[in-house]
Amino acid sequence: MPSEHTDKQYEAELRDLRERLLFMAGKVEEMIAFTTRSLVERDSDLARQMIEADMDINRLEVEIDELCLRLLALRQPAARDLRFITLALKIVTDLERIGDECVNIARRAVELNAEPPLKPLIDIPRMAGTAQEMVRQALDAFVEGDDQKALRVGPRDDEVDALNVQLFRELVSFMIEDPRTITRATALIAIAKHLERIADHATNIAEMVVFMVEGKDIRHPRSRAGGTRREMTNS
Amino acid sequence: MPSEHTDKQYEAELRDLRERLLFMAGKVEEMIAFTTRSLVERDSDLARQMIEADMDINRLEVEIDELCLRLLALRQPAARDLRFITLALKIVTDLERIGDECVNIARRAVELNAEPPLKPLIDIPRMAGTAQEMVRQALDAFVEGDDQKALRVGPRDDEVDALNVQLFRELVSFMIEDPRTITRATALIAIAKHLERIADHATNIAEMVVFMVEGKDIRHPRSRAGGTRREMTNS
Repeated sequence: MPSEHTDKQYEAELRDLRERLLFMAGKVEEMIAFTTRSLVERDSDLARQMIEADMDINRLEVEIDELCLRLLALRQPAARDLRFITLALKIVTDLERIGDECVNIARRAVELNAEPPLKPLIDIPRMAGTAQEMVRQALDAFVEGDDQKALRVGPRDDEVDALNVQLFRELVSFMIEDPRTITRATALIAIAKHLERIADHATNIAEMVVFMVEGKDIRHPRSRAGGTRREMTNS
Repeated sequence: MPSEHTDKQYEAELRDLRERLLFMAGKVEEMIAFTTRSLVERDSDLARQMIEADMDINRLEVEIDELCLRLLALRQPAARDLRFITLALKIVTDLERIGDECVNIARRAVELNAEPPLKPLIDIPRMAGTAQEMVRQALDAFVEGDDQKALRVGPRDDEVDALNVQLFRELVSFMIEDPRTITRATALIAIAKHLERIADHATNIAEMVVFMVEGKDIRHPRSRAGGTRREMTNS
């Protein structure tokens, strides 16, 4: 049954899947950058645009899911392609949830932009920049099948966590000194948490990529302490 | 090629997949219940047992992933089964991450159990109980293909969020009144956040189930406000 013709079509469909995933990841990266900018530059119009933009992300998720199902149903992919497609199914879920986190940040930005600024925002854009790079690295590693690149994503999660801890401590001290800051400080804590979750999603994607490429599971190393991503926040 | 013999085998494999997923979900539910108990009853041995138990969850994830891949590769499942198997692949990821959240809670419990109690814990066991029920409902809905049951999971997320907001406010007031409570209060805030994430995972599973059963997408309704799970925490 598989002719040269269908082989070429199949290759084209796999390429299409790869490109759509990269396109979606690019959109998600933009959302991380622009929602952060909407907060730092106090631009609520931009924040509202990002809440709208999430609908594109959601549409892309449904399209990519359907494409994966079509490939699985009609093309009977073999070992390597099968892993690629099933991993695409999982990754698209992480990307969509990153979009949701961005919407949550954008909503907080709209609230905060209506209040006087609490403090210059230094750590939050740094966290966002790192999280965004992690998403790109994880996706690049996926489409290139590059486990070495994927392995470099996880350690960056610690940078994001460390910034989060630092910011959290600073904001708690604000709240203690002046209870009128509590609403704004807790909104910033929530935003930092959303960024931390975005970095977690990128880490999860990267771990799944290593599993795909190496066929071994860094998600669950034998050592007890490493079995679950270390959690440092708010401590 | 498909004989009655292979058909029966195929049915048995699908049943095996279903049963393993339910088994894993049951283990995850136990982890939620026992990690919470380890905190409420100040039982650090139990907390450490739960950190160990997560390795079983991780092993189950790998096994179920492999079973799904085998089914996809060898059985060429048709439309309905294909959706079931690909959804199983996504659900198993959520279940494994719930296990990770439980480990994070257990680690916090060990820390907190070494300090004097800050306050009687009322909201946290309630949040945990609801989150646990949500996981069960979502998984039951999945294996029964029952969209009505799945639709009842999401609204319960609001209960968890509301408890989280209430607890957060209470703990912030503790911190303001007495800075010596900050470490313990922030640990409890972190635990509540982990429970909230568990409820989010259950909600995500339920939304995917509705999509599978109805072929329509409540994850991304047309309305803007509904497009992303409303986020109420810490506000």
